Amino acid sequence: MANFGFSQLSVVAPYEEHWREAQSAVGAEGILQNARRTESLPEAIDRCTLVIGTATLSHRIPEQECIALPSLAPRVRDELHRGGRVALIFGSEKRGLTREDLAPCHLLVEIPTHPQQPSMNLGQAVAVCLYELTRVESATKSTGAHHERDTARAESARLDLLAGLIEQTMTQVNYSPEAMHQSNAHDLRVLLRRLRLGAADVRRILGFFRRILWQMEHLKKKVR
Amino acid sequence: MANFGFSQLSVVAPYEEHWREAQSAVGAEGILQNARRTESLPEAIDRCTLVIGTATLSHRIPEQECIALPSLAPRVRDELHRGGRVALIFGSEKRGLTREDLAPCHLLVEIPTHPQQPSMNLGQAVAVCLYELTRVESATKSTGAHHERDTARAESARLDLLAGLIEQTMTQVNYSPEAMHQSNAHDLRVLLRRLRLGAADVRRILGFFRRILWQMEHLKKKVR
Repeated sequence: MANFGFSQLSVVAPYEEHWREAQSAVGAEGILQNARRTESLPEAIDRCTLVIGTATLSHRIPEQECIALPSLAPRVRDELHRGGRVALIFGSEKRGLTREDLAPCHLLVEIPTHPQQPSMNLGQAVAVCLYELTRVESATKSTGAHHERDTARAESARLDLLAGLIEQTMTQVNYSPEAMHQSNAHDLRVLLRRLRLGAADVRRILGFFRRILWQMEHLKKKVR
Repeated sequence: MANFGFSQLSVVAPYEEHWREAQSAVGAEGILQNARRTESLPEAIDRCTLVIGTATLSHRIPEQECIALPSLAPRVRDELHRGGRVALIFGSEKRGLTREDLAPCHLLVEIPTHPQQPSMNLGQAVAVCLYELTRVESATKSTGAHHERDTARAESARLDLLAGLIEQTMTQVNYSPEAMHQSNAHDLRVLLRRLRLGAADVRRILGFFRRILWQMEHLKKKVR
């Protein structure tokens, strides 16, 4: 809940021993401490205007409208927009929500899980639902921040310089002589563009190939 | 994983006592039983062509491209479409992924969590990511069509092989000795991922550096 900015938790008739020992994640203690505790579900949702039950419906025919989780957010937003209060209810790990629990629901939502393993861990189901409810918002936010890494791209002339050095090295080491055919020189230039090298990358790679060439020359002189 | 139809789990250097006692949900035993176990992360992802690290980036500047989770699915689908293999890597509950862990990643993905509670429980983070990847969205179809070039991407192990050869060459030519400092080896690996090399590119570049090394050795022998 804290991960996705939710804070109002209600617990219905918790099993006393477990509830006493419940521990929250570090930093999210407030949610447990401030949790509202009620004896019945209707009490917990008394002031809500849109009640949504989470359900695995493989084994029963729903009595309420049922939508898939990816379609839920607009419905919740609409309701909040008009000043409503929304509850999302989850069943216990063992039994899930009974038909009676689902009675006060306006809407059922189903997490699209694999037919062979439909039943989810409670904490994971909650995480997935709350992620979905905050999803669109966050998508728009982070698209702006999309930090790809704002390095300056290499100029075309620098790429040609690099291509020249690589070709020279290829010749020096006798790397498949046909590599120097017109078409391969072209391929090399295309490849270097496709890599979208930054200016700093090119500076470094140029230095590296200059060093390789220098060293080859140096050795060859000694051999002569 | 089973909830969203995923089956291939790799575990890197698990803590022995915990791993022995690990229990899966009822019905998902196969995933744990068939989990691949490796001693290192590079080994676990050796045949993958798109490696995605999950990260909370509040405290560091990413070296790789970083996108928000809601934008991830099209990227994964594209890669699978061209026959690639995709790995999604998660850190341990305590430490998350280190800078070194992130080095073999082509892409980082961030779950948009609340600034006051950014750090997620591991199981919940996995559930949210896999939900997102299988989330059916009518809009995705139109977003796609960003086919850069339908070449097969290089596998992670091949990129490491290439990094090793380049380092060897650097040593051979005495290219700034400090280039072999830990941090520079790391930078090289990050750079090679950022370039998004195709399998054919890597094959060619490997051949080229092997030839350079062979030629250097050959000359040096003559000098002796």
